[in-house]
Amino acid sequence: MDAEEFRKHAKMAIDYIIDYNENIRNRQVLPSVEPGYLHKLIPSTAPAAPEDWSVIIPDIERFIQPGLTHWNSPNFNGFFPAGNSYPSIFGEILSAGLGCVGFNWMLSPACTELEVIVLDWLAKLMGLPEHFLAEAPGPGGGIIQGSGSEGILVALLTAKERTVRQIKPLHPNIDEGTVKAKLVAYFSDQSNSAVEKACLLGSVRIRPIKSNPNGTLKACQLKNAIVEDRENGLIPCFVVATLGTTATCAFDDLTQIGSICEAEGVWLHVDAAYAGAAFVCPEYRYLMAGLEYADSLNMNPHKWLLVNFDCSCFWVKDRAHLLNAFTVDRDYLRDHYSEIMRQNWAPNFRNWEIPLGRRFRALKLWITLRMFGESNLRNFIRKQVSMAKRFESKIQADSRFELCAPVCLGLVCFRIVGEEFLTRELLSVVLDSRELFLNGATLHGKYFLRYAICSRDMDLSDVDKGWTIISNATEAVFSRHANKSQQVIADMTNANVNTLKAGISR
Amino acid sequence: MDAEEFRKHAKMAIDYIIDYNENIRNRQVLPSVEPGYLHKLIPSTAPAAPEDWSVIIPDIERFIQPGLTHWNSPNFNGFFPAGNSYPSIFGEILSAGLGCVGFNWMLSPACTELEVIVLDWLAKLMGLPEHFLAEAPGPGGGIIQGSGSEGILVALLTAKERTVRQIKPLHPNIDEGTVKAKLVAYFSDQSNSAVEKACLLGSVRIRPIKSNPNGTLKACQLKNAIVEDRENGLIPCFVVATLGTTATCAFDDLTQIGSICEAEGVWLHVDAAYAGAAFVCPEYRYLMAGLEYADSLNMNPHKWLLVNFDCSCFWVKDRAHLLNAFTVDRDYLRDHYSEIMRQNWAPNFRNWEIPLGRRFRALKLWITLRMFGESNLRNFIRKQVSMAKRFESKIQADSRFELCAPVCLGLVCFRIVGEEFLTRELLSVVLDSRELFLNGATLHGKYFLRYAICSRDMDLSDVDKGWTIISNATEAVFSRHANKSQQVIADMTNANVNTLKAGISR
Repeated sequence: MDAEEFRKHAKMAIDYIIDYNENIRNRQVLPSVEPGYLHKLIPSTAPAAPEDWSVIIPDIERFIQPGLTHWNSPNFNGFFPAGNSYPSIFGEILSAGLGCVGFNWMLSPACTELEVIVLDWLAKLMGLPEHFLAEAPGPGGGIIQGSGSEGILVALLTAKERTVRQIKPLHPNIDEGTVKAKLVAYFSDQSNSAVEKACLLGSVRIRPIKSNPNGTLKACQLKNAIVEDRENGLIPCFVVATLGTTATCAFDDLTQIGSICEAEGVWLHVDAAYAGAAFVCPEYRYLMAGLEYADSLNMNPHKWLLVNFDCSCFWVKDRAHLLNAFTVDRDYLRDHYSEIMRQNWAPNFRNWEIPLGRRFRALKLWITLRMFGESNLRNFIRKQVSMAKRFESKIQADSRFELCAPVCLGLVCFRIVGEEFLTRELLSVVLDSRELFLNGATLHGKYFLRYAICSRDMDLSDVDKGWTIISNATEAVFSRHANKSQQVIADMTNANVNTLKAGISR
Repeated sequence: MDAEEFRKHAKMAIDYIIDYNENIRNRQVLPSVEPGYLHKLIPSTAPAAPEDWSVIIPDIERFIQPGLTHWNSPNFNGFFPAGNSYPSIFGEILSAGLGCVGFNWMLSPACTELEVIVLDWLAKLMGLPEHFLAEAPGPGGGIIQGSGSEGILVALLTAKERTVRQIKPLHPNIDEGTVKAKLVAYFSDQSNSAVEKACLLGSVRIRPIKSNPNGTLKACQLKNAIVEDRENGLIPCFVVATLGTTATCAFDDLTQIGSICEAEGVWLHVDAAYAGAAFVCPEYRYLMAGLEYADSLNMNPHKWLLVNFDCSCFWVKDRAHLLNAFTVDRDYLRDHYSEIMRQNWAPNFRNWEIPLGRRFRALKLWITLRMFGESNLRNFIRKQVSMAKRFESKIQADSRFELCAPVCLGLVCFRIVGEEFLTRELLSVVLDSRELFLNGATLHGKYFLRYAICSRDMDLSDVDKGWTIISNATEAVFSRHANKSQQVIADMTNANVNTLKAGISR
């Protein structure tokens, strides 16, 4: 494969992705294709003979672009941000070009050590408790996992192993499988689907805890559930608290939950996948009060910290538990540095995660943190929050709508006052236009829409444009249901548009 | 972040990675740094203010390169190849620049559909059984997982769920945890560490099966173990057979193993992580005879098919079992296409894997398969095999050495005739030189060295150079042990250097 041909076309690819990103506003955020569109367009077998570089970029525009949802478009306001930035792409290019697979320290010391160092950088930027740092004297440290889902599963499996090791010596006659079958995990009904999935995959019983009206975990119910399960012969093992829930960006009270976990000897994992990024700004750190209780924590720079997927940071207070749960050895995996010689700076990360192989993902995080610097990371978060405030003010000023949760950070949850079908129809109308992407969610049976500030390039004019689309679509829904809407208007007069002011103070 | 600055420096990064790859022979394959080298060189906190683009590439050379192990160097002959190629890097650049996170079909139909189509392409290139194809009428299909380890864990968890669903209705009074505690997984002592790790993480009892002298799974022992376990009230659940073991590239007999699994109703997973790539050449397909019995299969284009990490392909015969094991739903995850409307071309891949988020990894596989074409993929595999043959002939012609396994595909296993410490010292001498990377492994207590053909750029002169390093290092070991070596020479006279001819015929 010719280097000069690659040089020419890779540089064209750079131009292409810059053009794509700089002009992304001009593309319809959602595609119009139907399921199965692509196999009608491209051959059903790989080519027998090599194809030429020059056909690839035109094919991206012909076949791939019509089927893309533009996550980095300022009109993408669903889910949470898919982080990206030029520095991060730059890091991804270098990582692909260097091509190392650093599962052991010796299989590229730089790959492992940069990850350790940059996780310390990020922990300090976020003001995390010192015991998560590699540079601290204790056994804590951080690693980049592929996704929040993997981080949560890793935490669950670690908690499971720790509990089994605690219980077994006390009951030497009980079979390990029997102990495992009694383990219980606790989390709020508002925790991310990844928590339930981790328990499903890890074969741990679940006990979802009802959330408070504001979407936070009810600590007293957690306490009662743990006590009750113990009385019934079960073994409480794992609690997940969320900082910034997916549906409404609610923050569980770590001080309450953490003290329960500590008293009960239960592993506390904190999922801050989205909201963790905000802690680079000191003014949001009150939201993580109690984090010192956490045994493990995940946050995703690939959500809201300008790093492209995948880059999910995971910290653990005591790596020994992780190593107990994940270490499998073979002759061919060993090198000649003992665990003691490695100290905190040179772990074998294969024993901290599910996969064996691993990319040099620390590069893109390192480069992103350097090229933004603390100051611009803070500016970025603050600007995004200000845009959510702008959208919130639009909702508050329009009596057709109500907020469904306190607005915290970059997410606004709202609905049309009145019956649920109106809000569902609003979403359909908006999505059918393909011009704006929102998604729906539920809290305590109440259906609402999520407007999340996602694109790094969003500005206030994009908020205003989105608001206009939503406002017009609402008009369309109302005119479809002219009779019904008269009733809605009557309802609105009585509506309390601020029913959910309780919750997080700001 | 300025697009023009990125354009300029990203193009410099392209030049940098081309220069790196084209001149990789000039770099010492193994680094000379000691654990902890990097934190002495770079700051312990992120910068407060943004840094400039122009400092990044010099820092790569100053801080990162000294700590890299050059997986793509022609002098890297340990483990298995870390696949890479310019077309694959090109795909990675586009994927990072487009930045979609396609966990649902609607969150970039192209991301999902291209993956389905390209997995069909690859299945056809490899001559896989038709029931793994999406285009076939059945419920089979493929997905890209992040690693072979994840694929094996996904298969195990799927088998576990299938077995529990089979058993529960027959024994409605037995608790699910009790059923799970009785499940057993079987695999050869030569299977990859990832198999044992999957069972550790998936909490399934393991029963490793002794391998034959040639490193393949003893099918009669598998049968006996299953029968014995059933008699003892356990529940056989999962068998892993390996095509191309890590230590010696041995091939388990799928026809024998598969018929046992079929008769016993046990899930058969086939791990062809490395060797699967060889099946693009029809002349190697005899090695996968019996693959029609497999319920699932993984092979890694990021090993030996020129795609950079991560790209691990996974096929399943019946996706329904996968969906049963992995599906967790939430309002915010749904779109308006039912499972039936999706048919085979538009799955929601979040329900086929551990993570929720996913990169557009199909792009690099698509582009790599197109730009090489079937013909050059075959040429590549054949050229690599011919280099292993060259190294094999060097070993066979030198009475100081013996082969430790039949040479199949791109791996040669050898040792110094005589006591084990000689071979261990040889490895130390070679690694201390930093000029060549090999690794050690064990089969039935016999320690040997693995010489794997890895770099896409290797040619016969690299084999000859590696051989010279090994030969000289052996001389150095012998001269250290002058007295002992006289005994070795006497031994050699009687040695049968071909003790392991039994096994795979070629």
